Formats: sequence, structure tokens, C-alpha cells
Amino acid sequence: MSAERKTIDLNGDMGESFGVYRLGADEQLVRVVTSANIACGFHAGDPQTMRATVRLCAENGTAVGAHPGLPDLAGFGRRNLAVTPQEVYDMVLYQAGALLGFARAEGVRMTHVKPHGALYNMAAVQRALAEAVAEAVYRLDPELVLYGLAGSELIAAAGRIGLRAAREVFADRSYEADGTLAPRSMPGAVLHESAEAEAQVIRMVKEGIVRCRTGEEIQLGADTVCIHGDGPEAVEMAVRIRKRLENEGIEVRPAGNVRSG
Amino acid sequence: MSAERKTIDLNGDMGESFGVYRLGADEQLVRVVTSANIACGFHAGDPQTMRATVRLCAENGTAVGAHPGLPDLAGFGRRNLAVTPQEVYDMVLYQAGALLGFARAEGVRMTHVKPHGALYNMAAVQRALAEAVAEAVYRLDPELVLYGLAGSELIAAAGRIGLRAAREVFADRSYEADGTLAPRSMPGAVLHESAEAEAQVIRMVKEGIVRCRTGEEIQLGADTVCIHGDGPEAVEMAVRIRKRLENEGIEVRPAGNVRSG
Amino acid sequence: MSAERKTIDLNGDMGESFGVYRLGADEQLVRVVTSANIACGFHAGDPQTMRATVRLCAENGTAVGAHPGLPDLAGFGRRNLAVTPQEVYDMVLYQAGALLGFARAEGVRMTHVKPHGALYNMAAVQRALAEAVAEAVYRLDPELVLYGLAGSELIAAAGRIGLRAAREVFADRSYEADGTLAPRSMPGAVLHESAEAEAQVIRMVKEGIVRCRTGEEIQLGADTVCIHGDGPEAVEMAVRIRKRLENEGIEVRPAGNVRSG
Amino acid sequence: MSAERKTIDLNGDMGESFGVYRLGADEQLVRVVTSANIACGFHAGDPQTMRATVRLCAENGTAVGAHPGLPDLAGFGRRNLAVTPQEVYDMVLYQAGALLGFARAEGVRMTHVKPHGALYNMAAVQRALAEAVAEAVYRLDPELVLYGLAGSELIAAAGRIGLRAAREVFADRSYEADGTLAPRSMPGAVLHESAEAEAQVIRMVKEGIVRCRTGEEIQLGADTVCIHGDGPEAVEMAVRIRKRLENEGIEVRPAGNVRSG
Repeated sequence: MSAERKTIDLNGDMGESFGVYRLGADEQLVRVVTSANIACGFHAGDPQTMRATVRLCAENGTAVGAHPGLPDLAGFGRRNLAVTPQEVYDMVLYQAGALLGFARAEGVRMTHVKPHGALYNMAAVQRALAEAVAEAVYRLDPELVLYGLAGSELIAAAGRIGLRAAREVFADRSYEADGTLAPRSMPGAVLHESAEAEAQVIRMVKEGIVRCRTGEEIQLGADTVCIHGDGPEAVEMAVRIRKRLENEGIEVRPAGNVRSG
Repeated sequence: MSAERKTIDLNGDMGESFGVYRLGADEQLVRVVTSANIACGFHAGDPQTMRATVRLCAENGTAVGAHPGLPDLAGFGRRNLAVTPQEVYDMVLYQAGALLGFARAEGVRMTHVKPHGALYNMAAVQRALAEAVAEAVYRLDPELVLYGLAGSELIAAAGRIGLRAAREVFADRSYEADGTLAPRSMPGAVLHESAEAEAQVIRMVKEGIVRCRTGEEIQLGADTVCIHGDGPEAVEMAVRIRKRLENEGIEVRPAGNVRSG
Repeated sequence: MSAERKTIDLNGDMGESFGVYRLGADEQLVRVVTSANIACGFHAGDPQTMRATVRLCAENGTAVGAHPGLPDLAGFGRRNLAVTPQEVYDMVLYQAGALLGFARAEGVRMTHVKPHGALYNMAAVQRALAEAVAEAVYRLDPELVLYGLAGSELIAAAGRIGLRAAREVFADRSYEADGTLAPRSMPGAVLHESAEAEAQVIRMVKEGIVRCRTGEEIQLGADTVCIHGDGPEAVEMAVRIRKRLENEGIEVRPAGNVRSG
Repeated sequence: MSAERKTIDLNGDMGESFGVYRLGADEQLVRVVTSANIACGFHAGDPQTMRATVRLCAENGTAVGAHPGLPDLAGFGRRNLAVTPQEVYDMVLYQAGALLGFARAEGVRMTHVKPHGALYNMAAVQRALAEAVAEAVYRLDPELVLYGLAGSELIAAAGRIGLRAAREVFADRSYEADGTLAPRSMPGAVLHESAEAEAQVIRMVKEGIVRCRTGEEIQLGADTVCIHGDGPEAVEMAVRIRKRLENEGIEVRPAGNVRSG
């Protein structure tokens, strides 16, 4: 990889409605992001929503990925649950398989898998869970790309079994000197100024460098940027980020849609 | 097809445990049937059970199929639910896709789909639901075989879109003169004598003929026989049926494991 | 009962959010209706929402009732499910008991039970299901009032066991000559003109008379009017209905908050 | 309380079946225990099972209590979930309220609440969760008795708000010198010899003393003994424990069925 990165992926969570309940601004978000992480029914989403969301992505040329979560609809998959690696392997395979079904039915390729919420966070730091996720994805389809926090156990686990990974970075979150995200409880953990967030993401993408919460500059490889879609403000910020990236000559395209080899 | 059929499939429901709850005699049943219909988490089953059951089938050379049901764990998918064709399409695709994930992970081919319980019964008589099931199966993989009641709307719907179907018959149920199953509420609807059931199934398989509840003999094509696995008696009866079929020179093999063309 | 009715109840569904999903305009609706039907977790609602909604009602002096539904969150309890009377009895008791818990904890009396959606519709016409609902309510607390469609089996079943019932009427639906609601598929089944709906409800309440879809005038006793809360328009219409009733000298108050005897 | 205790309660978990799935030997267990902890639908149980189990207890004179758990049917409520105190308060109130409904319908008094599995374990050591449980129970009915691990935060939380508590001890588990249970991972944590377990429980009940895993003798007040019902061996051991207690002149009776004051 050269010093100056030329491409970046923008990924966003979609398909989080359930039954009569509506959530998210998918119709807007699908035109901003290059990769969609589609909820698979455990923390959000249902078969109707999955089918409609895959179709929406197909119509917009947005890459389709699975967004498996913990079996906790009431908690939106955000509450840590003491699951075993075997349970994680099984729940990722189940949910990603279900989404694969809709992708096949719509004639599009499923390109990636990104764990959701507490599953994402637990697998970022627990090696055994990270390996369970990577193994499930690899066994489903070794061409899939696993999305995980840059520098996390998920990225390492993918590397060990020869699964491609996309290192995810955040525009609006501060980083610690060791490359981890500053806990939300810390002052300065969230960048509330849009300009500041935009600047951070541009530099991460162009130079692979981020200025930490404590002032140091560290290297942090970025393949994909997490885009929020909860509310009109979030979508507007996403649009600005995308425009600035394109103005800087960076090609915005899915991390998962290039077949390896 | 010649007058004398030379092969038959024996299919049985498997993987119906859930969490700590055990159901069925899968370890025994897997050695008797040639095709397993594996529950997919809506009416029974869970990701752990699905993975273990696919593996068990792989080890025993039993063909792996999806057994999607209504989203009604409390009712075991046996209670009619007023679902739309679109909902049926989506729930079949979701569940069959999930099982496909496990099949791929275990390196086995998923060969067929058989709807469960109330979904099976509703799709047998409601053309729009039958078409929704057939469409979902076809779009997931046009090589799959759809299992349905012999003479039902499911078989007809598969035929209309070029999906292969397996006509299912029952050893221990009486038939009406129009080829439908006699309702369980009717006297004589269930053949309680094992010998009687065995004789019925042999004749259906060999000659394609069944003597109805009301005495007439009708033609009824049979590709697969439904085998029950609930309890030791059921498994013993299945063993006897299999032995008699083999003694009659009929090859027992999956309906779904021959690629078309 | 005198010819001119002097009081009426306005009831509305509340507490239909679930987890992160928001539904309804409870903050507005609670100030318009006199009785709240609170979802109990089967078709909508969850323990957090139930507690918050009971508290909201307590603060606003709105009568608290249980709104039990079929176990079908994905379908919002609107899809008919083939349940037995015993299952209906059990699910009503479970859900109404759960709400009773929150009412006791908040120090308010639970006044009534109104079945939701498909359960309401099925129990309106199936006598055995109606009796199961009435029995469950009566056994939980014989002082409770059962809300049901005016003229339905629910009202009759309550009467047979000595349970008080509130006959529900609709402002915006047409009636047939036999007192049943005109099916939504019929032209004219829904009164889209607000003025028309207001006039219908005023006459039903004041005179106990409704002009049917086919022109006849029939008698139809009304104890409570169903108020919709889905969207600002619905709440505005509710406000207008309430004002017109009060202007006509009719006291608006809960049907369930008067102890019998 | 005198040095020599004269009464003890034996409590067992019941009603853990779900839908078609059977679990436990309730018919046998109900005759051995004096108090039943009945699953309430979150980790196990369903409305049908709850009604049947309350009825079974009523017929056998066994005290009826609620056994609320985490919303995790797939994990049987045994997996820790990162719930807030508010969520715990709400889930206990919901489930205990639901059981209260069945108790009222059957004309029996609900006497106690015992949290299940991971909820029991988390509330034993996390003060905020313990207080949430105690508060929910107290607000539902201040006459209820809260069952918790002897020496745990649950017992302390009950004491602080004036709720009666029953200190639970285990026949077949070793204790540490600080009164906590030895972790199952430790050698000697489980007493596999029935005679040893029986001796331990007799001494705990009679003298309020237990010999720890490390040899010391400590004081440990006991109001109720946890009785397992999973399998015939467990029930047989329970019968022996009950007989030995009665032979020692100790009256076996529910901890929760005496109204205070």
C-alpha cells in the first residue's frame, strides 16, 4: 500500500426496521454509502425488511453485507451477553446465511459481514470471539470481507485465517494513543463539531494518521468509514464527508466488492 | 416413468431441539431416513442445533434440507397464521438461506426444502402461498427440490416455474378418493396397525396406487415417504418400512441429491 | 338507561413502543382519552414501556387498562392465529397480570381490559374465544370492565358471567344493518370526512342510533369510543370529538373507573 | 431466632417447560418441596405451563412463587446480560405480575419471588441490581418474601426496604470462608456424595453452621434449601433430605406463607 491512499469505503447500517416499526433513513443513506450492513433479524430487521433492503441496495449499486447481532431485539443488540465462541460462530453463520439467501434471490453478490453493537465490541477485544466470527464468515464464503474496528482482534483473526478484512474508522470519535476508541464516558470522546470530524476522517483516509485525544499523532490504517444514518443531521454530515473525500481525489467505493486474486 | 418405481426417498424431520430443550431421536432417525428436513429456528431449532444437525447428516450421508415454519415457537408452527404470500416468500427465503449457511460451512450440498406444519398445510391448498414457497426456493437455488403433499398446490406451483418437486406420501394416513388426506377427525383417518401402514406404503411406492378410506383404489405418485421420529416406536416402524422396501428391490435414496439435466 | 346518554368514555391504545422503536403519540393522546389500553408485550410494548406508560397515565388521571394481543410482535398482533380458547384464556391472564403488576407498583387501579387486533376481532365473532377472554378477565379481578365491539360475542360473554362490559363504537367506520362493522374492503367502510365521523359519534353517543352504510338507522348502545393515536391528524380529530361531546353536555369519563355495587 | 432452628423451607424450580418442549419432573417435585419457583416466560415457561403449574401447586398445597429470569429463552437465562437496574426492576415486575395473575385466577396466594440463573447470580453481587429486584417485589406486594443467596446483596437489599427475605443454602455446593459459594471451576466445589450433601444441609439447618471448602466452620443462616428437580436422581436425593430433616424434628414448611405482623 502506498503512503497516499486513493480509495475508501463508506459503510452504513441499514434495514433496522422491524414489523410495523420504522427506523433509519435508508432511502437517503443508500445513496451516500458504498456498503450497506443489513440487520439480520436478531437485534433488528425481519425477513420483509431484509428483502426490501437488499433490493434497495441493488437498485442503487450499494454493496450488500450482513450485519449480524446478538439475539436481543429488546436491547437492539447493544447489551453485552455472555456468549461462547461456539454460540457466536453459530449466530453469525445463521444470520449471514439468511442474508445470503436474499442476496441470491435478488441476484446480487453479498460482499461483506460486519458484526453489530455489543457483538462488534466484544469481538474487538476477545480473541476467541473474534476467531469465531472470522471462522463463520470464512466458512460461509472465503471471498467475503470482514469489517472490524481498525487494530482490533477481529482484524487480526481475519488475517490469521486468510480472510480479507476492512479496517473501520470513525469520523466522530476520538482515539487513544494505543489506537483504541476513547470510551464515551471520557470528555472529548465524541467530536461534536462536524468540521473537526470531517478533518479527522480526511486525514485518516489520506495519510493514515489520526491525532489522539491526548495530542499524539498515531498511524491508523483505514479501509472503511462508519457512517451514521440516524436522523437527517447524520445523513447531511455523511454527504459532506463523501463530498470532501471526492474533492480530495479519493475514490469512494466498496471495500468488499473486488474479488481476490 | 415406468409403471414399477425402482427408487424412493424416506424423509424425516430433524433438529427440532431448542436451547436446553431436547426433542426427537435424531441419532437414530438419521440412520433410517435418506433425507433430513432440518428446523430453521422459527417453529423449532436454533443455530447450535442447526449446525450440529447438518454435521450429523454429513457424517451419515443423509441429504440435508431446510424445514422452514411459521414464526411460532410457542405453537411449534402448527397453528395457522394469516400470512400473506409476500410474508411466506420472505420467511422461507430467510430460513432456507440460514440453513444454506450451515450446509456451506460443513461442505455439504443443501438438496431440498420442505415447509413445516401449518405452513405445509396452508401451502398445500392455497395457490398463492404455494407459489410464494416455490418462488422463494427457486430463487435461492433452482437446483433445490421442493417437498410437498402429493397432489397439492405446492407440487403444482413447483411445476409451473420449473422447480423439481418431490411428492410426499404418508404410510399411516388414510386418503380420500380425491387424493387428499382424510382429516384426522374422521374415523379411520390414521392407520394404527403397523402392518397396514407398511402395506400401504409398499403399494404406493411400487404401484403408485392407494386404497382410499372409502374403498376405491386411486393413483397417487410418490417420490418420498414421510417418516416420523417422535419416540422409539416411530423409529422402529421406520426401520421396518425401510427394510420391506429394500426387500422388495426398491432402492432407498434421497429425492433431492441428483442434479437435474 | 335513559334515552339520552349523559356520559361517554374515550379509549385509546398506548404503550406500543418496543425497545428502541417508538410508536404512537402517547404524550398527546393521554390528555385526550379517558381510558388507555396499554400494550402488554405480546404484539407490542415491553416492560420499560409498560412502566412508563402506566406512570404517564397516573400523572394525567387517565384510566389504566390492559391491551393483550396475540404473540406476534412481527405482525403487530394483526394476523389471525388459530389459537384455542385455553390458549386465549392463558395469554390474556398472563398479559393482564403483567400490567396489573405495574399498576400496583405505581399505586393506581387497573380498570379494564381490551383485547387487541386479531384477538379482538376473533373474539368478537367466536363465542368460545370470547368466553375465554371474559373468564380470564373475571378471574383476574371481577371488578374489571371488558371492552369489546358493541353487539359482539365479547359483550355477550361478559354478560353471561356477570362481568361488566363496555360497548365500543367507532367514529370513522360504517356499520351494517346488523350492527357489525362494514368490512374495510367495502366502498364507504371508512368515513374519511372528519365532520361525518364527528357527527356519527355524537349521534351514537347521544341517541344510541347510527345510520348504516345502506341507509337504515339502527340502535347501537355505546359506552366507549375508540380513539386513534397514530399521527398528529388522528390526535387532532380526537380533540375535536372530545370538544364536541363536551359542548353537547356529555360528560367524558372512563367506563371502567366506577366500582360496581 | 433461637440457636436451634425448628423449621425449614425446601424450594424447587418448576414450570420450565415451553410449548411442546417438556422439562423437569414437576409431578414428583411438587410433593417434595414446600415452595415452588415458577418460571414466568422469559428464560422458560409459557402461559399454558404457568397456569398448569400454579394449579398443580394449589392441588398439592405447595407455596407458589415467581421465578423471573433474563429475556433469554435460547440460553435458559443462564448467560449474563448487561442489564440496567431499571431494566431489572421492570422485568421482575412484569414477570411476577404475570404469575400473580395466574395465582389470583386459581385462588391461591403468591408467596415469594426468586430470581433465576444469571439474574440471581448478578443480583447476588451487584448492589444496584439487588435493589432493583427488591424494589420491584416490594412494590408489587410488600407481603412477598424475596428468596436470595444467604449472605448476598439480595438479602441485604430486602432488609434495607423492609421486605422479608429467605436466605437460600445449597446442599450440594461447597462454601468459601466468606460465605460465598465456591466457584464450580474449583475442585471440591460440588459435593457429589449424597451422604455428604445431606449431612451439610442438616447441619446448616439445625446449627446454622457449614464447614467450608478450606476446612473452617462458619455461621450461615438458612431459611430455605434449594432442591434440584432435573432427573430422577435429583428428586430421590430431595426425598432423602426431606426425610432426614423431618427425622431430626425439623418442620418442613414454606418460608413465604406466613403473613407478617
